[in-house]
Amino acid sequence: MANASPQVRIVTRDEIVAALPSVDAVAAMERAFARYSAGAASVPPVAEILFDDPPGEAHIKAGHISGDPFFAVKVATGFYRNPSRGLASSSGLVTLFDASTGYPSAILLDYGLLTDIRTAAAGAVAAKYLAPAAVRRIAILGSGTQARLQARYLLQVTTCRALSLWARDDQSAARAASDIAAHGFDVEVSTSPAEAVRGAQIVVTTTPSPSPLIAARDIAPGTHITAVGADSEGKQELAADLFAKADIVAADSVTQAALRGDISHALRAGTLEPQRILELGDLIDAPLARKSSAQISIADLTGVATQDIEIAKAVLAAIGT
Amino acid sequence: MANASPQVRIVTRDEIVAALPSVDAVAAMERAFARYSAGAASVPPVAEILFDDPPGEAHIKAGHISGDPFFAVKVATGFYRNPSRGLASSSGLVTLFDASTGYPSAILLDYGLLTDIRTAAAGAVAAKYLAPAAVRRIAILGSGTQARLQARYLLQVTTCRALSLWARDDQSAARAASDIAAHGFDVEVSTSPAEAVRGAQIVVTTTPSPSPLIAARDIAPGTHITAVGADSEGKQELAADLFAKADIVAADSVTQAALRGDISHALRAGTLEPQRILELGDLIDAPLARKSSAQISIADLTGVATQDIEIAKAVLAAIGT
Repeated sequence: MANASPQVRIVTRDEIVAALPSVDAVAAMERAFARYSAGAASVPPVAEILFDDPPGEAHIKAGHISGDPFFAVKVATGFYRNPSRGLASSSGLVTLFDASTGYPSAILLDYGLLTDIRTAAAGAVAAKYLAPAAVRRIAILGSGTQARLQARYLLQVTTCRALSLWARDDQSAARAASDIAAHGFDVEVSTSPAEAVRGAQIVVTTTPSPSPLIAARDIAPGTHITAVGADSEGKQELAADLFAKADIVAADSVTQAALRGDISHALRAGTLEPQRILELGDLIDAPLARKSSAQISIADLTGVATQDIEIAKAVLAAIGT
Repeated sequence: MANASPQVRIVTRDEIVAALPSVDAVAAMERAFARYSAGAASVPPVAEILFDDPPGEAHIKAGHISGDPFFAVKVATGFYRNPSRGLASSSGLVTLFDASTGYPSAILLDYGLLTDIRTAAAGAVAAKYLAPAAVRRIAILGSGTQARLQARYLLQVTTCRALSLWARDDQSAARAASDIAAHGFDVEVSTSPAEAVRGAQIVVTTTPSPSPLIAARDIAPGTHITAVGADSEGKQELAADLFAKADIVAADSVTQAALRGDISHALRAGTLEPQRILELGDLIDAPLARKSSAQISIADLTGVATQDIEIAKAVLAAIGT
């Protein structure tokens, strides 16, 4: 019987790249978060493998959205010495399985591209639902793929084109600034995280920093912060005191945020009470009314499997069969 | 940079089937267990997704053995209504990633075959290290793929060819008996689990039973039992009182057995003290001396990722590059 196996579709990175212009990743992420927060998804805890030499990490995210024809298993890796070998730091792949038979349906050989895209589109969703109405400046911390992609996906949710960028390495910062400018932003490179966020109403942090880059004193009223860099225990971009100052704190997954990311540090530090954490998906159907334009909001995104499912489904639909 | 992606090798099920005769799966499992028990493996907890309609399950096992060039992510699925659609119940695939870059190296489209093989070979390892010296009869409970494969891999570790088989469905039992007989066994079909295990020195349970099939009263002194069927909370093949009667209790993974499988039920029932559980890998280098031929031993196997890594490595080595 086992030999009557249905065919598995192998989707190359080139096919994915070609399909992406016709994929509405922001809408896909709205669906992903709404379904997740509605309790319609079965998502086991993230499995993590850490590597010492060379240092690296693998995150395995799996899940099924009730009623969906597929379930997904996504592997995303980060090996920060890869660039010295001419390889991107991030890689991975997404596999979809038939939810009625368990048989593999499609393997998307995206080398981490879909994780990058869905993370950037999730940042746009966070800004869409949480940023103040009037945005005069965006600040981005970091100079990697996410720094570039977060800027690109923000184009869809704000008309602001003034952007400050800070990164630890000056040359990397200059290259990222140039790439982001090519998408229509007027980019200034800042000499410190604090300088970068000054005057910004949307701040996006995209670094693998092991220690906080911005603290309460750096952030003015009327700022929204999306933090996407810290996704495991050893990483932190936002100081714990920033959460005490924030009026609104949201996570893509409340349970996962308690284990990973900046929220987990704030919970341990006691600067954030668990009951204050909203879930992003709950805001999609019932958007939050900001009580004043002076509120500070934080969205901490550690990534959930429903995002991987929805982006993979959207890409497959765009490719056609 | 990301476009300079190394090629991923796609290995078909046919290639795997062709390679298997030159793979020493029992030796691979000895290595897998020894490395696991030596603490040389990084293995996150199993991720599980359960499906209601049709009923099914997916288990995702991932891990890395220190010093290995690859890490593995394995998906194994079980959908028990598949046979009515002309498909095997089990499916899945194994992906290997470069442990120095995080890039995918190989995808083994085995549709669950390697999980079946490594589970059967693990049963042979358990019998090799735990069964009494003189085996006059083998009993197998179940009539699926594992029932057949456990018998086949026992050929390598015992000279006994007398085998009793019981399965819930008479017709399935007859078909399994016929298939197993074709491998050189003299097979008798039994009408109950208790009848099947009577007079057997090696008992292998391979069913997805939700309630115990054999209890302490069914098992005579001088019996070794390998239980491979129960791998999630809702399954149980061995009654808890059997663990109180057993002189030796081993697991492939002590931590995992405490969460899944028959050992978890016995721990909850209080018939097994955690400190009595040995780990199979610890017996590879220092085999246990049975104090008497009348001892009863149980090996509870729930499957660890090091098995998936070692069997995939062995298959790739056999295929060559």
